[in-house]
Amino acid sequence: MENNAEQEQKKGEEVVVNPWEVSSTTGKIDYDKLIDKFGCQRLDETLIQRVERLTSRPPHVFLRRGVFFAHRDFNEILDAYERGEKFYLYTGRGPSSEALHLGHLVPFMFTKYLQDTFKVPLVIQLTDDEKCIWKNLSVEESQRLARENAKDIIACGFDITRTFIFSDFDYVGGAFYKNMVKVAKCVTVNKVVGIFGFTNEDIIAKISFPPVQAVPSFPSSFPHLFSGRDNLRCLIPCAIDQDPYFRMTRDVAPRLGYQKPALIESSFFPALQGETGKMSASDPNSAIYVTDSGKDIKNKVNRYAFSGGQDSIENHRKYGANLEVDIPVKYLSFFLEDDAELEHIKKEYGAGRMLTGEVKKRLIEVLTELVERHRRARAAVTEEI
Amino acid sequence: MENNAEQEQKKGEEVVVNPWEVSSTTGKIDYDKLIDKFGCQRLDETLIQRVERLTSRPPHVFLRRGVFFAHRDFNEILDAYERGEKFYLYTGRGPSSEALHLGHLVPFMFTKYLQDTFKVPLVIQLTDDEKCIWKNLSVEESQRLARENAKDIIACGFDITRTFIFSDFDYVGGAFYKNMVKVAKCVTVNKVVGIFGFTNEDIIAKISFPPVQAVPSFPSSFPHLFSGRDNLRCLIPCAIDQDPYFRMTRDVAPRLGYQKPALIESSFFPALQGETGKMSASDPNSAIYVTDSGKDIKNKVNRYAFSGGQDSIENHRKYGANLEVDIPVKYLSFFLEDDAELEHIKKEYGAGRMLTGEVKKRLIEVLTELVERHRRARAAVTEEI
Repeated sequence: MENNAEQEQKKGEEVVVNPWEVSSTTGKIDYDKLIDKFGCQRLDETLIQRVERLTSRPPHVFLRRGVFFAHRDFNEILDAYERGEKFYLYTGRGPSSEALHLGHLVPFMFTKYLQDTFKVPLVIQLTDDEKCIWKNLSVEESQRLARENAKDIIACGFDITRTFIFSDFDYVGGAFYKNMVKVAKCVTVNKVVGIFGFTNEDIIAKISFPPVQAVPSFPSSFPHLFSGRDNLRCLIPCAIDQDPYFRMTRDVAPRLGYQKPALIESSFFPALQGETGKMSASDPNSAIYVTDSGKDIKNKVNRYAFSGGQDSIENHRKYGANLEVDIPVKYLSFFLEDDAELEHIKKEYGAGRMLTGEVKKRLIEVLTELVERHRRARAAVTEEI
Repeated sequence: MENNAEQEQKKGEEVVVNPWEVSSTTGKIDYDKLIDKFGCQRLDETLIQRVERLTSRPPHVFLRRGVFFAHRDFNEILDAYERGEKFYLYTGRGPSSEALHLGHLVPFMFTKYLQDTFKVPLVIQLTDDEKCIWKNLSVEESQRLARENAKDIIACGFDITRTFIFSDFDYVGGAFYKNMVKVAKCVTVNKVVGIFGFTNEDIIAKISFPPVQAVPSFPSSFPHLFSGRDNLRCLIPCAIDQDPYFRMTRDVAPRLGYQKPALIESSFFPALQGETGKMSASDPNSAIYVTDSGKDIKNKVNRYAFSGGQDSIENHRKYGANLEVDIPVKYLSFFLEDDAELEHIKKEYGAGRMLTGEVKKRLIEVLTELVERHRRARAAVTEEI
């Protein structure tokens, strides 16, 4: 297992990817290198075609367009599914802010697709304890944020009969706590120092946390859901910064007689200002929030979305847009479902026949519709959580 | 706060006293030095007289005879009691073996006296998680031992309407877990390395444990018992090897807005073979168990109880017994309630007019009665736990 995710990636280029920090001195993350470093596998075309074949429906946009780009043992989950065996999904969120932004929705939108397609149970962990520890929030404030976030998550439209959403402060105990102790018995301090970069100056709360995020990977942590099904496999859709937790979990699982969880991992949703990692909760203009009005969205996209267009119309017509760095095109490739339209925009914009303003206009429509739909769904969420 | 309880006490004499090890290169523990090292206070005659005055009954044998010899803020508990305020008691046990020995009963016998005398609530923690971690027992086996030990503890005769007995694997969660996280946020890895002597080779389960033993000191960990009484003070009767946990707890409490727990601390019950610290669970002949028959007790006392008598009757008559090292006399001073009789035995035996055999005979009677009484009480304990 690779030590310290924050080693330099290549000479002069330093990349930090761990659950608490995503950054790169070059402003760009080389995901191929990250796959090598973390030791996961690329989610290649063959695997995507296999998903399509097995599910008899087109793969999700996030699969087709490489948003989810890496995995661990996802092929084994498909093997099991092909044999008629079930699995369950586990995802989560650290509730550090009241409102979610579009980047936060990505794993949940994809998880909903997986649940709908494979018809499997889902557990969603809200790590209010983690945020209480790292963000130095009070227990009460962390719990409040968890409750608010839960409404946004439910609004993503999960099959409520197959979904269990919980916060750690509410749920830790019983079988879950027993698994935490079992995991914590298999991991040394040196190990978590290596995986997470903790130091002896850190509070013990940090050292104690990784087992909390590990154990939802084991069905026995949920006796009311999976009683007698200790061998049920777990598939975790998440952003790749969460990989360290599950490297640890996969390391430990066989020693406890448990199955290793499989993972399907996404790249990071870029900030409006450009692709330098994840969006920053501390800068509201770096992201579109699900609470933003149509006017907010229009304003943010027009003012802040980094454009790959040229500096003058003449040059733009001549050289075309640089799609590699263009945020409107990147956002459209997450949320514009129509492949033909996206291809058309990329072709026309890249050739300089379409202007940044036109692309932004289309993005504003797409995002406004997405956020409006989310807002309506959230308003319909009652206090049944 | 003193670092590492296992520092050398004075040149050439090394003493280790922590929750997992009690040993001394000289075979004897200098409790005065331990008080200085740990920074607690001596439980002096004035304080004992104050207990007698406040409670209008003779102080417990364990107070009169210095078994409980140290404290932290016990005087403040008495101040509060005098003002008509209540407090609650917290004690516990790590269930590492199926049967308890006499040394295990000491804190519970004393806690029962405190509960009866002050008419206060009591919480008893069975740290099955701790034993699962340190003794490498399975979760299930630790829980089984906790359940067996609970019966022996209940048999000590606590006021069942005022007593809450729980095991960590059953109870950790909710308000208790929230307090664990709060404590763990106040303690660095360096700190627990200093207090408990952990190293980076240790499993993170060990680092994670101290908050579990800390939080029963806070009434808010038991909302079903102490709701709205967050300022209720806590008094912890325990053997002095548990002091490191509560040094840490007292350090943290004010930062959480909680009261520091007070402590009343005992010396160690000696092994039959002599006073070298605590008894060893791995040597059944080093202790009298509550499961021992009258025949076992007679055999163990006669064969193994280290005698301070002289090697021949002539020498014994001439020099008398060395009471300082004599185990039968030490055991009698724990369990023979009659002060006059104990004084008589010490005087006659010390002067050589009484022989070891006679003292052992009296001890066998006292222990057999004690164990018989315990056995009857335990048999009456139903599965209501």
